[in-house]
Amino acid sequence: MLTYAMEDRGGLPLYEYLYRCIRRDILSGALAAGERLPSKRALAEHLRLSVITVEGAYSQLEAEGYVYTRPKQGFFVCPVQQVPEPPRPAVIPPEPVPPVWKLDLARNQADSSRFPAATWARLTRQVLSEGSFLTPGPHQGLYALRRAIADDLRARKGMTVSPEQVVIGAGAEYLYILLAQLLGRQSVVAVEDPGYPKIRQVYRKYGVSCRPIPLDRQGMDPASLAASGATAVHLSPNHHYPTGTITTIGRRQTLLRWAEDQDATIIEDDYDSEFRFAGRPIPALQSIDTGGRVVYMNTYSQTISPSMRMGFMVLPPRLLERYRRELGFYACAVPVLDQHVLARFLSGGYYEQHLSRMRKEYRTRRDAVLAAFRSSPFAGRVTISEQGAGLHFLLRLDTALDDETLRQRAESLGVRLAFLSEYSTDPREAYAHTLVVNYGGLEPEHLAETMSLLAEVLAE
Amino acid sequence: MLTYAMEDRGGLPLYEYLYRCIRRDILSGALAAGERLPSKRALAEHLRLSVITVEGAYSQLEAEGYVYTRPKQGFFVCPVQQVPEPPRPAVIPPEPVPPVWKLDLARNQADSSRFPAATWARLTRQVLSEGSFLTPGPHQGLYALRRAIADDLRARKGMTVSPEQVVIGAGAEYLYILLAQLLGRQSVVAVEDPGYPKIRQVYRKYGVSCRPIPLDRQGMDPASLAASGATAVHLSPNHHYPTGTITTIGRRQTLLRWAEDQDATIIEDDYDSEFRFAGRPIPALQSIDTGGRVVYMNTYSQTISPSMRMGFMVLPPRLLERYRRELGFYACAVPVLDQHVLARFLSGGYYEQHLSRMRKEYRTRRDAVLAAFRSSPFAGRVTISEQGAGLHFLLRLDTALDDETLRQRAESLGVRLAFLSEYSTDPREAYAHTLVVNYGGLEPEHLAETMSLLAEVLAE
Repeated sequence: MLTYAMEDRGGLPLYEYLYRCIRRDILSGALAAGERLPSKRALAEHLRLSVITVEGAYSQLEAEGYVYTRPKQGFFVCPVQQVPEPPRPAVIPPEPVPPVWKLDLARNQADSSRFPAATWARLTRQVLSEGSFLTPGPHQGLYALRRAIADDLRARKGMTVSPEQVVIGAGAEYLYILLAQLLGRQSVVAVEDPGYPKIRQVYRKYGVSCRPIPLDRQGMDPASLAASGATAVHLSPNHHYPTGTITTIGRRQTLLRWAEDQDATIIEDDYDSEFRFAGRPIPALQSIDTGGRVVYMNTYSQTISPSMRMGFMVLPPRLLERYRRELGFYACAVPVLDQHVLARFLSGGYYEQHLSRMRKEYRTRRDAVLAAFRSSPFAGRVTISEQGAGLHFLLRLDTALDDETLRQRAESLGVRLAFLSEYSTDPREAYAHTLVVNYGGLEPEHLAETMSLLAEVLAE
Repeated sequence: MLTYAMEDRGGLPLYEYLYRCIRRDILSGALAAGERLPSKRALAEHLRLSVITVEGAYSQLEAEGYVYTRPKQGFFVCPVQQVPEPPRPAVIPPEPVPPVWKLDLARNQADSSRFPAATWARLTRQVLSEGSFLTPGPHQGLYALRRAIADDLRARKGMTVSPEQVVIGAGAEYLYILLAQLLGRQSVVAVEDPGYPKIRQVYRKYGVSCRPIPLDRQGMDPASLAASGATAVHLSPNHHYPTGTITTIGRRQTLLRWAEDQDATIIEDDYDSEFRFAGRPIPALQSIDTGGRVVYMNTYSQTISPSMRMGFMVLPPRLLERYRRELGFYACAVPVLDQHVLARFLSGGYYEQHLSRMRKEYRTRRDAVLAAFRSSPFAGRVTISEQGAGLHFLLRLDTALDDETLRQRAESLGVRLAFLSEYSTDPREAYAHTLVVNYGGLEPEHLAETMSLLAEVLAE
């Protein structure tokens, strides 16, 4: 008869302790395959337990397949592999620790300390009090949010968009994943060179080929695009990252004609275009697309915070039908709570207020940063090129050092730099010796310090 | 000289109205390519505007590539395609309207009306008041959340997991997307047949082949698995959807040996296993995996709400290293705010309390539903099979009607049914005439009504 010291069970319920004892004996081979267990009544009497306790243990063993029953004969041990020793704990590779920088010019991130967190919190409390955050929403995203986005695009960018065309996604990378699936693995996507590397990374993970296309001062080179065999193009015509180039109207028309002739799709990735410091916003390519070739996409990472993971795309009718047919099974990846809050933040006018405040704030900051660079000890050896928009500018260095040497010297001084050459697959000299200066995080009060640190990095 | 009626500008700023007038003339061909614009001073005088206004309009036109400058000669019109007419508004396919059902037994969804929304709201207010929700978190997810998940897995399932192994994702489908990329397109994934169709859909979208493997009462058939050429298997050993089958310990050991011999990966998708009504939780396959072959994944869709879009996976060391190397560039797709709140909900013990309350609630509901079925007019013609877990059970009908005829009859009466045959690619008779009854949304007070409606649907 099975004998176990039930008093050793610690805090476990009796049935669970008994289950564990029998399980151990089965796994060690002490109870062999085919062996019959004592009847519930007999074991209960033997161990001074209730029949219900033994029944609980036997049921659990049966549910997990350690024992089986034969009608009117009782419980029998199943054949299992004997486990001689407890498994050794696995060695887990430790979490990589991100380095701490004295100065980080590579981080292209808005300063979220200026975000109206109190307003966001108030709107969140409002939504929470209404309880609707537990009700799942439509797969393309909450209609109220899509309408608010369509209204915002009309008001701020003159775009005509219907809420039906909008698909909400959990940030730019998630939207790239959806786009890769929408375009399909057989497609060839032309991407900007230089350009944002994550776009290529995501497409390639999906097996979509990418063709880097060089840029000139008007935008993507049409001859290279035509020769590339691309079936789609992914670009940022309103503010290219990191050069800031704005695609000219002539080039836009050429792109649209190319897309119509080739039955191709244009992805207009409107990354980092909101902070334009002079004049009016550049009209979206989508707004002059009469052939339904353009997918417009944007996120709130640069304007609210990258911690939000919210973005959207606007699909032309042809792709909207394909999306619903082929990808409509994906539930919207953004929590319903956050969708409700963003909808109110947009439709309440808080987003536009925030943008206009930040535009002034960043213009002041940019002016201070540019002034500091121009009066720095290395001012004679740098050429700044900036297009009056975005939270970064390019700084070309007159130096004999190559980018890698400069990077290493900077790192040894606790400074992280970004180089234009990192954004390109093209080894051209034109892209060397050029820093991408992301100034969104540079506090005006620390500029003097920043400049003397940079003087050390850039010393000849 | 260009002449425009500046008084017709409506609410537009002067510079913007002037920019629009000139742009229209360029696009219509009234201003031809190569033509020189009047000097800023001359145009300002002519239209009685300030030079700054004209400068604003010219700068905007230049930024968008409608005009260009030649040093000391002024502004010239760029060649653009003439646009004869305003684009017609596109016809947007209307949003599909989901049908409204009198009774929906196909919806496998927890009843979120019982969720402690007030606690969730309080924790959210707490996080909002601390401001940290605007600070981006690590790509694998907030460490505090990953620790809370590891602790919960230890306490409730006896799993030994380090927070470093946990990757947070925006719901099951997003995790499937990551897994498809982690396994790679050259892999062949064995999936359960019958099984959850979205798993196959997501893998296939990514180009990963799926091989449906039949199940018997012990779980996935090992001979079919071995013959399939699969390099990975995706299954729900603790509670198969929709049959409820629990993979036996012997079969689990066979799976692990297969994975070790074949250098294969096992995805343990622990979908809908939390609500087990008798005994203790089934130990995870991951907890007996000494070879590091198992990825464990789960979400909070069934236990909190599908509106939350939060889940996680636990990677064994080998795949964790690959994940960091190849997919570490993906930022965590869940908003930081929601991650903080879930971390507190877990570590504060609220999740466990909620599960235990809901387990009782669903047991009562299930008992009432089963009793109602057993005393229904059609009780003599149905066989119920259920495994004491999950928010659904199988109901085999003694009927001459095929599933499609039954479905249509149900729909005409406003009833949505789910059939086991929908979950399978196998046309076997064994899967016919079997309803998957999702009872999570059936209110006990409406059971009598539900039964008479079903009696009508199932009438001979």
